[in-house]
Amino acid sequence: MKSHAVAAALLPLVFCAAAADPPPKPPQGSADVLAASTGSDWRPLEPANTLYLELAAGRVVIELAPAFAPEHVGNIKALVKDRYFDGLYVMRSQDNYVVQWGDPDGKRANPRAKQSLPAEYFRASEGLDFTALPDGDVYAPETGFVDGFPAARDAKAGRAWLTHCYGMVGVGRDVPPDTGSGAELYVVSGHAPRHLDRNLAVVGRVIKGMELLSALPRGTGALGFYDKPDQYVPIKSIRLAADVPAGERTALEVLKTGTPTWSAYVAARRTRREPFFVDPAGHIDICNVAVPSRPRKAP
Amino acid sequence: MKSHAVAAALLPLVFCAAAADPPPKPPQGSADVLAASTGSDWRPLEPANTLYLELAAGRVVIELAPAFAPEHVGNIKALVKDRYFDGLYVMRSQDNYVVQWGDPDGKRANPRAKQSLPAEYFRASEGLDFTALPDGDVYAPETGFVDGFPAARDAKAGRAWLTHCYGMVGVGRDVPPDTGSGAELYVVSGHAPRHLDRNLAVVGRVIKGMELLSALPRGTGALGFYDKPDQYVPIKSIRLAADVPAGERTALEVLKTGTPTWSAYVAARRTRREPFFVDPAGHIDICNVAVPSRPRKAP
Repeated sequence: MKSHAVAAALLPLVFCAAAADPPPKPPQGSADVLAASTGSDWRPLEPANTLYLELAAGRVVIELAPAFAPEHVGNIKALVKDRYFDGLYVMRSQDNYVVQWGDPDGKRANPRAKQSLPAEYFRASEGLDFTALPDGDVYAPETGFVDGFPAARDAKAGRAWLTHCYGMVGVGRDVPPDTGSGAELYVVSGHAPRHLDRNLAVVGRVIKGMELLSALPRGTGALGFYDKPDQYVPIKSIRLAADVPAGERTALEVLKTGTPTWSAYVAARRTRREPFFVDPAGHIDICNVAVPSRPRKAP
Repeated sequence: MKSHAVAAALLPLVFCAAAADPPPKPPQGSADVLAASTGSDWRPLEPANTLYLELAAGRVVIELAPAFAPEHVGNIKALVKDRYFDGLYVMRSQDNYVVQWGDPDGKRANPRAKQSLPAEYFRASEGLDFTALPDGDVYAPETGFVDGFPAARDAKAGRAWLTHCYGMVGVGRDVPPDTGSGAELYVVSGHAPRHLDRNLAVVGRVIKGMELLSALPRGTGALGFYDKPDQYVPIKSIRLAADVPAGERTALEVLKTGTPTWSAYVAARRTRREPFFVDPAGHIDICNVAVPSRPRKAP
């Protein structure tokens, strides 16, 4: 008798329109859109812009966004090249906010990374392939996607920035804006803290393995920091995928965000046609779109 | 050198305005607003509308919202009175979505609860003390708070409903809308799935202990259900606070959401004056306001 309840909200059921002449195109669920996609609707992750955060529990795959924070991304690559993060820790998990990792003691040297960087909290909106969403936004004049990353745009001010959606990775910093080097990183693990937009450098997005970070025990110290060193979660290593032997890489592809397939996917997410929904929203928030990824099929 | 980074974003620092004559009221951080609040700015949780979900790891305190789903709340109270949930399980944790509990086998009898209920997915907007937010919303014509619960309103249609923000509790159901009895409940554990608004009966909000649910391991079955019974998280009991001896209750109070203190709190959350913020948002989403609660002070 008892059901899987809310579960049904995500089941890939298809709403079948009544037959007619000419037959109307049946409304599609997002799973149908993805099932009907072709190989060219997807792009592989570039090894030169992909990080592997290795924990005892498994691998977290992060796609970097150099188009938005080139200096920060460059610094993170330099830190990773120097194996800066290996043996450091996840030291914070604040419920409904962020998980954070780096050097709890702030003592590890990172001589090859720049210690001060420009505040890359937004960039020029010109030159971006921005695929807008139609429903407006509470925080920004416009939201949409740039090459798979959730973003916002203020065309009047000529600025664009990545939005702090679930799974987005940013660079921690102290109070002065030039104090984030990339040696301390966080990932959003709760409802999008959009008030952080344009106040921190957002450098990427977790593509796979988010649950290895989001389900960590919450820290009981102030702001979710772990109280005791034995609560820290060790980082085995962080590597650029390009520096990992090809056979050890996680081959993933991400749905392209500027195609007809993408438009159909967004439409299906905006207005859920599955029978479960008695009153489909007909709107969607930037952080509820969820850009799909999947194992890359062999060519 | 290394800082607590994003941490600073939540530190209760005060921005001090330059002196002037007449002295301008200094902008306040939300922590200042709460520190300056008086006892009458808070209301205690009513034992008759508070549930204690007891897990081995501790107690989760849920405030019920009978004003929005009276029949569902009544049924849940009947189930709890009959100790329906005792010995059942949390059986689902889907990353960035919901945690769900009830009877995985759907076999436990609940004869005193109604098996079919009206679809209380919205109610008349009339008669509600609705404190609106100023920034609009992607999903609804208007959002705000009703007695501490995040809500939305469509004045034209004369409807109001609770919004699926982090920590909100709803009633799972099968595909037909009258199949949710309250015997299966879920809590939002990720970015607000607002597409569920007006499609499910929302019955309350977790006030304390959310991390006992949100940090549970993610289920590896479809939709985050636990694959194997040994992964289920046992529920020791669910009780109405009124049925628990006074000395064993968790005395909590919640900030009232229709007062000048509330307005000041929202203003401080909309525009962060702490020095960390170089570009305060000046806007706020219904699910980012976070209604404060705290241990109730002895009278």
